[in-house]
Amino acid sequence: MLLNRKPVIKLLCAVTAIVGAAMLLPVIVALIYKEHSCALAFIACILPMMALGFLAVRFIPATDSGSLRMRDGFFVVGSSWLIMSFLGSLPFVISGAIPSYADAFFETASGFTTTGSTILTDIEILPRSMLFWRAFTHWIGGMGVLVLTVAILPMLDIGGAKLMRAETTGPTMDRVSFSLNDTAKSLYKIYMGITVIEVVLLMLCGCSLFDAVTHSFATVGTGGFSSYNASVGAFGNIWVEIVISVFMFACGVNFNLYHALVKGERGALFRDAEFKTYMGIVSVSVILITVILIFSGSYASPGMALRDSFFQVNSIITTTGFATADFDLWPVPSKIIIFILMLVGGCASSTGGGIKVIRVILFGKLIDRGLFRRLHSSSVRPVKLGGKTVSAETMSGIAGFILLYFAVAAAGTMLVSLEKVSIVTALSTVITCLSNVGPGFERVGPVCNFSFYSAPIKVFLGVLMIAGRLELYTIILLLRPEFWNKNR
Amino acid sequence: MLLNRKPVIKLLCAVTAIVGAAMLLPVIVALIYKEHSCALAFIACILPMMALGFLAVRFIPATDSGSLRMRDGFFVVGSSWLIMSFLGSLPFVISGAIPSYADAFFETASGFTTTGSTILTDIEILPRSMLFWRAFTHWIGGMGVLVLTVAILPMLDIGGAKLMRAETTGPTMDRVSFSLNDTAKSLYKIYMGITVIEVVLLMLCGCSLFDAVTHSFATVGTGGFSSYNASVGAFGNIWVEIVISVFMFACGVNFNLYHALVKGERGALFRDAEFKTYMGIVSVSVILITVILIFSGSYASPGMALRDSFFQVNSIITTTGFATADFDLWPVPSKIIIFILMLVGGCASSTGGGIKVIRVILFGKLIDRGLFRRLHSSSVRPVKLGGKTVSAETMSGIAGFILLYFAVAAAGTMLVSLEKVSIVTALSTVITCLSNVGPGFERVGPVCNFSFYSAPIKVFLGVLMIAGRLELYTIILLLRPEFWNKNR
Repeated sequence: MLLNRKPVIKLLCAVTAIVGAAMLLPVIVALIYKEHSCALAFIACILPMMALGFLAVRFIPATDSGSLRMRDGFFVVGSSWLIMSFLGSLPFVISGAIPSYADAFFETASGFTTTGSTILTDIEILPRSMLFWRAFTHWIGGMGVLVLTVAILPMLDIGGAKLMRAETTGPTMDRVSFSLNDTAKSLYKIYMGITVIEVVLLMLCGCSLFDAVTHSFATVGTGGFSSYNASVGAFGNIWVEIVISVFMFACGVNFNLYHALVKGERGALFRDAEFKTYMGIVSVSVILITVILIFSGSYASPGMALRDSFFQVNSIITTTGFATADFDLWPVPSKIIIFILMLVGGCASSTGGGIKVIRVILFGKLIDRGLFRRLHSSSVRPVKLGGKTVSAETMSGIAGFILLYFAVAAAGTMLVSLEKVSIVTALSTVITCLSNVGPGFERVGPVCNFSFYSAPIKVFLGVLMIAGRLELYTIILLLRPEFWNKNR
Repeated sequence: MLLNRKPVIKLLCAVTAIVGAAMLLPVIVALIYKEHSCALAFIACILPMMALGFLAVRFIPATDSGSLRMRDGFFVVGSSWLIMSFLGSLPFVISGAIPSYADAFFETASGFTTTGSTILTDIEILPRSMLFWRAFTHWIGGMGVLVLTVAILPMLDIGGAKLMRAETTGPTMDRVSFSLNDTAKSLYKIYMGITVIEVVLLMLCGCSLFDAVTHSFATVGTGGFSSYNASVGAFGNIWVEIVISVFMFACGVNFNLYHALVKGERGALFRDAEFKTYMGIVSVSVILITVILIFSGSYASPGMALRDSFFQVNSIITTTGFATADFDLWPVPSKIIIFILMLVGGCASSTGGGIKVIRVILFGKLIDRGLFRRLHSSSVRPVKLGGKTVSAETMSGIAGFILLYFAVAAAGTMLVSLEKVSIVTALSTVITCLSNVGPGFERVGPVCNFSFYSAPIKVFLGVLMIAGRLELYTIILLLRPEFWNKNR
């Protein structure tokens, strides 16, 4: 048997049940706002999904998690996000809020992957419970990403997370355990804590409970769905913008650092090379863009330029994608900075997407080492990070990841360009989906949406978001014949 | 002493004398066409340049080449191209053919680096001797590149050439020898032979001797300067296009393979992994673009679509840059293919620029290996090329090169975008210069030119071409303080 069928099916049924259980919350919202048909749509999904989960737990015998191998792990992770996006889109379709199935799949994949790209031309006409569910998918997705990067991907030897932890020689062998360790449990508490604090602060700034909750979900998951057509710009409130900016920035940080802080390791943040670089990139980008905006003369006051630059930089590097300004109208040099930030993304083990700051640092070190070697070909200088030597194997893995990212982006852009869009639209569509940002440039700019794409391209973009969210390898492995070949 | 001053000065004086000697040929052309002021402009340059070379050889004592170290090698190679571009531009300025110095530097750097981008809005008004010199800089540059990649860069441990040769563990240590080996000498004969054959064939197709010679120089050097505003399209002759296409393709091949063929190793071409991939990329691109052009309905007949696609693909992948069609008007998917071909470039040790096919192959293998390792983390699978194992060190060097290429491209695009051009114009300007192609998209498309850029940007682009031509490391090393620090 290629896959260990029973435990794999059991895990996937559990995922189904979790999505079902999560829909109980929007049912409550629907009841509060008297959206009865929406409530029924959710309930119609919840019942079979939870029943399936119950049956799986009841009738598939308990297996020790040790019987799962790498291959099973990849399959479960990759198909979980696909299943979640499929199941999560059903209430939209059933209630008629998003009638087209391709649209609903795109929207839900965008939610669970914490991307935030939308196919909705008018967000505000959606029922409240649907808006709530849309934001809630971000929050669930963000939590899922933490499980993934903190507990699962390191076992599958993917992602930069491993680098940052003491146990660099962790479990990377053939057996995979899906039991969550204490770190992961503590991270949930931190994740929930951050959400609650943001809700309270947004309410203090004058937001309604509904707005505070939905925007906090979208911030903490670094998703970017807003319940307003004008995104966060709709509030027109500088304090709301500051709170959201700060929380976006905070959720682009490696959550393991918060765990260390909670455990009492003071200074954990500022000892961390990735955090320092992340802060440096944000600061330099904010300053550069502010200067460019001031010189371009398109802003009335330097303060306004700084306000928009600060919000947009935090929104884009963390791959949230909330908007308070249409950066597609900014001068070209600042658009290029925004584009580079889309590629960079957040820190490892954050809810942010993209290539990740840690890989960008090692990318720089690899170039630096190449230059050094030209002058000193006989001397060996290993790459170091935070005093520790990074193995040649890890370096080649990271180089391979970045090259794979570019290769997928190129192939995706080719495909999307068949829709007769411009190069910039096609490229930014693919990058924003792959990095889980949200908006792109030109026809997919911050004040536009993805509704004009054909159904097959929408489904493709949804899969691209999932591939990006799962650090590419997972989905691409599943697509390769070698994965399904028993003898390899 | 940081550099070994005497031998370095002597070599640079020799380069000066070679450029001076090369100008004797355009003097003859000027006399034939009775362009007396041009003849005088060349002679005014030739006399001091050759005198300098004579004095250097006469009065700087003979040094054994063994006294040159890596650092000296980089300095000589990097500054040679800068000096050539500076000196070579003087006749344009003195004769008044190109009055602005920044323009003349751009044009000459574009010539010697075999790029073929131009600042001329009307090429055809230039005197014949100047058009000849322009094309001749391509031919000299192409030959220079062969010396560089076959004889010098491997010693400095740069470029993919080393990979392709039996002596992979060649001289990479601290001492550098500048004496040319027999292989290099044989390559010159091949280079000249190819040029002569192309001249004869183009004349058989009906070209004048002048057109045949200038276009052969520009083809064999994979440069792309034409003496016509409409480039090769001006001939309107399918046979001329076929001859030039075939010779462009041929000059994008590793010249070491021709050496092997001449030595009697039959089948050397088709045993070569890089050649096979190169042929594959060209074939697939020609077919894809032809199909896209036919479906777009912009071509009257499939034959015309194939003709333009065939010429353009060969012109762009070899980084020649001749045009018979305005590919900027093509559908977006075909433009993306053209853009990718600009990045790929020719084979190692050809006169073509770009990232090089061999690096793209290893790039693919690196990604593939990364995927394989996810499933089989405990097994070690080394990267192989043509049956030989590629060392981890070489792989990391190649990954570093590609990442450096993207980093320089990003930084360059930022700088160029300050000129208020679109993202596509800025990006394609930088890529076409860095890959030594010639045309880009939009405002620097095949029917446009680079005249609108400001003088500082023109000089920057000239330096960028030189950096690209010298496989990036050379120029970038010279710009780093660490290069000039005695203690490192």
